[in-house]
Amino acid sequence: MASGSYTIGLDYGTNSVRAIVVATETGKEVGSAVFNYPHGDMGVVTDPKDPHVARQHPADYIAGVEQTVTEALKQAGGDVAARVVGIGVDTTGSTPIPVDASGEALALKPEYAANPTAMAWLWKDHTGYKEAAEITEAAKAAHPEYLAKCGGTYSSEWLWAKLLCCARTDRAVFEAAYTWVEMADWIPAVLTGTTAPDQVKRCICAAGHKAMFNPAWGGYPAADFMASFDDGVLAKVRDTLPDRAVNISDTVGTLTDEWATTLGLPAGIPIAGGAFDAHLGGVGSGIKPGTMVKVIGTSTCDLAVSPIEHDLADIPGVCGVVPESILPGNYGIEAGQSAVGDIFNWYVHKVQPGGLDHAALNEGAAQLKPGESGLLALDWNNGNRTVLVDQQLTGMVLGLTLHSSPSEIFRALVEATAFGARMIRDRVVEYGITVDRVINCGGITVKSPMLMQIYADVLNCPMLISASEQTCALGSAMAGAVVAGAHPDFEAAAEAMTGIREQQYTPLAENVGVYERLFALYKRLHDLFGTREYAANQFDVMKELIAIREAQRASS
Amino acid sequence: MASGSYTIGLDYGTNSVRAIVVATETGKEVGSAVFNYPHGDMGVVTDPKDPHVARQHPADYIAGVEQTVTEALKQAGGDVAARVVGIGVDTTGSTPIPVDASGEALALKPEYAANPTAMAWLWKDHTGYKEAAEITEAAKAAHPEYLAKCGGTYSSEWLWAKLLCCARTDRAVFEAAYTWVEMADWIPAVLTGTTAPDQVKRCICAAGHKAMFNPAWGGYPAADFMASFDDGVLAKVRDTLPDRAVNISDTVGTLTDEWATTLGLPAGIPIAGGAFDAHLGGVGSGIKPGTMVKVIGTSTCDLAVSPIEHDLADIPGVCGVVPESILPGNYGIEAGQSAVGDIFNWYVHKVQPGGLDHAALNEGAAQLKPGESGLLALDWNNGNRTVLVDQQLTGMVLGLTLHSSPSEIFRALVEATAFGARMIRDRVVEYGITVDRVINCGGITVKSPMLMQIYADVLNCPMLISASEQTCALGSAMAGAVVAGAHPDFEAAAEAMTGIREQQYTPLAENVGVYERLFALYKRLHDLFGTREYAANQFDVMKELIAIREAQRASS
Repeated sequence: MASGSYTIGLDYGTNSVRAIVVATETGKEVGSAVFNYPHGDMGVVTDPKDPHVARQHPADYIAGVEQTVTEALKQAGGDVAARVVGIGVDTTGSTPIPVDASGEALALKPEYAANPTAMAWLWKDHTGYKEAAEITEAAKAAHPEYLAKCGGTYSSEWLWAKLLCCARTDRAVFEAAYTWVEMADWIPAVLTGTTAPDQVKRCICAAGHKAMFNPAWGGYPAADFMASFDDGVLAKVRDTLPDRAVNISDTVGTLTDEWATTLGLPAGIPIAGGAFDAHLGGVGSGIKPGTMVKVIGTSTCDLAVSPIEHDLADIPGVCGVVPESILPGNYGIEAGQSAVGDIFNWYVHKVQPGGLDHAALNEGAAQLKPGESGLLALDWNNGNRTVLVDQQLTGMVLGLTLHSSPSEIFRALVEATAFGARMIRDRVVEYGITVDRVINCGGITVKSPMLMQIYADVLNCPMLISASEQTCALGSAMAGAVVAGAHPDFEAAAEAMTGIREQQYTPLAENVGVYERLFALYKRLHDLFGTREYAANQFDVMKELIAIREAQRASS
Repeated sequence: MASGSYTIGLDYGTNSVRAIVVATETGKEVGSAVFNYPHGDMGVVTDPKDPHVARQHPADYIAGVEQTVTEALKQAGGDVAARVVGIGVDTTGSTPIPVDASGEALALKPEYAANPTAMAWLWKDHTGYKEAAEITEAAKAAHPEYLAKCGGTYSSEWLWAKLLCCARTDRAVFEAAYTWVEMADWIPAVLTGTTAPDQVKRCICAAGHKAMFNPAWGGYPAADFMASFDDGVLAKVRDTLPDRAVNISDTVGTLTDEWATTLGLPAGIPIAGGAFDAHLGGVGSGIKPGTMVKVIGTSTCDLAVSPIEHDLADIPGVCGVVPESILPGNYGIEAGQSAVGDIFNWYVHKVQPGGLDHAALNEGAAQLKPGESGLLALDWNNGNRTVLVDQQLTGMVLGLTLHSSPSEIFRALVEATAFGARMIRDRVVEYGITVDRVINCGGITVKSPMLMQIYADVLNCPMLISASEQTCALGSAMAGAVVAGAHPDFEAAAEAMTGIREQQYTPLAENVGVYERLFALYKRLHDLFGTREYAANQFDVMKELIAIREAQRASS
């Protein structure tokens, strides 16, 4: 084993939790373990009667810590466990957990253990879609500044929509909950024994991006605004929340003796403030001013930062602009595409089952020149998160002939996601963010050189790939290293612990020009089908189509 | 065998020729035979270096008569052959054949037998696409009335474009040809021994729809207009053509003794004027004022008639409005969709090879309610023949989600063809044609009840299906019966010889309303992507996409 200290990153995903043990001097991973959540369908408790429901059992989170940390440390071997100096945590979100007055999660109490309402409301739970629309309308009228920081629309995936929905649909659980704790805050609180409502720290990442928290207006939304829904149910929860939030350079507490014994770690090591997985993926990829990070998976999370000392205007259509939500000392800007890998999977498995697989389609698509197929697609099969913030939007493929082949269609879908990525990059640049290069992470960035080259050509910007395959967990481990003092700050941690792969993608001049022309067409379709301006001019084709679809599905 | 007389219908398709023997009293088919053209790829001589080339060898046409008539008569048995009273002929078109001064087809002479330029230029040969554009421009400037009768654009599939292309690309063949004879005129001329250029009759169907012939301006285009191309090459051919044309109620001559002996038929029986296959398919389906006929195959031909005694305005966008081109005594209106069955075949075989077949997709699609999938498609994978007359246009599918299934996409494609069919019906109705019902023919009309029901719902009009499976050949046989005097006119022939199936499709009220809404959206997309008005307003997305495609394909 190398000398020096180690740190642990805990990465809570949608279906499993991973722990990695890394050397603070090099970022080298010496141990790693994954635990699949046992409850529900791949960890997600669903409701056959309501496709919007997605819950998780907090017991899975607890079981996951013990299993993964123990196994990862065993892998690391030697005296690594004794030299672990800190822990960082990332989770999905907004994934709020209802807790009682003592801070215990309701789902961990026998009487609620089997009630999905009392479990964690997973980020992709959309049961509160009507409540989200209500909150959006109310904020538009009373506090437009709240929405300006989160893209103009409050989402059903976010805290207050979920809480209002719970209050209306399962009042018993809602009343039993003293407050709600984001998973990103709950795990650190559990490890540090600070789950009591007056002790639990709230991270700026979850609070700022999902709960309309901003120092500019003193924290969470004003009490009178919160009180305006129903009989004031949200105000009661709001009253339990602190006015300050922590970031990943803050220590939320130290590992309890009990957890130290269970995990075989030194007691009293610091635990960093939590954050969302993608945000710490940005950190683990080496995000800094000028470097955008794209976490590409089934969907994407696009991250950028901008020094707090520079003024930054609100950026319409991005998911959030929150001080220190990603990197301390910087505004954190989060944007994203609702579907990327999901679109390719849909095409491979749903549209042509038994047909060409990803590899064969990639191979065929890679032979094509930009524009040669005559196809152009919109990447909205799962709506548009940025910059239109409209989950209802749908995808399209234009330019089909009798000769259009699966590889051509596949390439058009890849290009569509590149155009969607460019819309996001262009938007943040338009509002003053510098983007000199993009670091990508996620399995597809390694598996599909074609995709990466297309992204480089379409964005006309170098595409780099993060060296780590576990950037989220690495980012968490870096937070653990910083709070432990192993590095003075994240710049130093990034310098030591992150890297990029040798394989880089630079724009090819002969493709850039063609993609400029294609992107101009994409933008016309984007505006035509996605914006209100054209909808008002009789071009509300996509919206009207959705209205018909909903009516027909609803009719018996 | 039933008593009475019989008649023969010869139906020359793209890959084969069929002969049927039918009873003139009932239309009952008593014998049928098919001959596949031996030359080229399924009868089509192509050029690997030029996808626009599609030629056929006239020797195949001759061989086909003998084989099919002999076999069909053998099937009929008894003394049927002796009681055949007339023959009718339908062919593809415009399929012109270069002939020498004696009327012999060049390709039948040893020195030209292997030269594709000297063969028949099959309807789908598009080598003259630039020449077609030139002719369109010239006619627009000098004689817009020529274009008004054929939809506003002269097609590369038509006579003069092919001839001008030949004159420019193989002058030797062009010079060796004294004149050119449409296949629909050549077969009757061969059977009646009237192939000499001053004897061959020209049918109004080919001349009127494909060669800008119209009695309104005295026949073929004016000599000075024809002389305006290159060094007057077209004028030389035009000078060989008559000022009058025949229709299917005209006798072009009688069967020669030699052919009578070869075929085992009575000598001297009359041969009717030829016509295009789809037109005689209209006749064989019982077309009349108020009854539109759709011949649905890989593409469609939509036919309507209107009594000549009523004035009829030019109808923009239809393929032609020509007196007596379909039914004597009536204007013949031809329209069509560039791809219908071809789109379904593309989806089944090209997009998802190894996936669901037609039957399975139909079954899945039939479970869906209109609009339920949220999908909307444009049926332009092979361009738009009517009403936009733009072969460059391409297809699209809008409304895709991560759940869109093959059956949903398939149904959207079927619906798209129904919307395209409605555009045609609406256009002819708008210009004064009555359409009370539609008679459909073609294999798919029997194979897919779902498709027929969708057509009934979208057009809000009863969909009937022709009883005969060989309506084109039956129409030809009816022409043989009429020229033989077995029926006084086509009304009587239709009464006796045609029928519709018991299975009919009437609009379902609950679907009509939804399809009205969807059709309104289809029209918006149709206009947006297909018309000049929007192209001028920065919405030339589809056209610009095609321009990029062509440039990229052309670049090495």
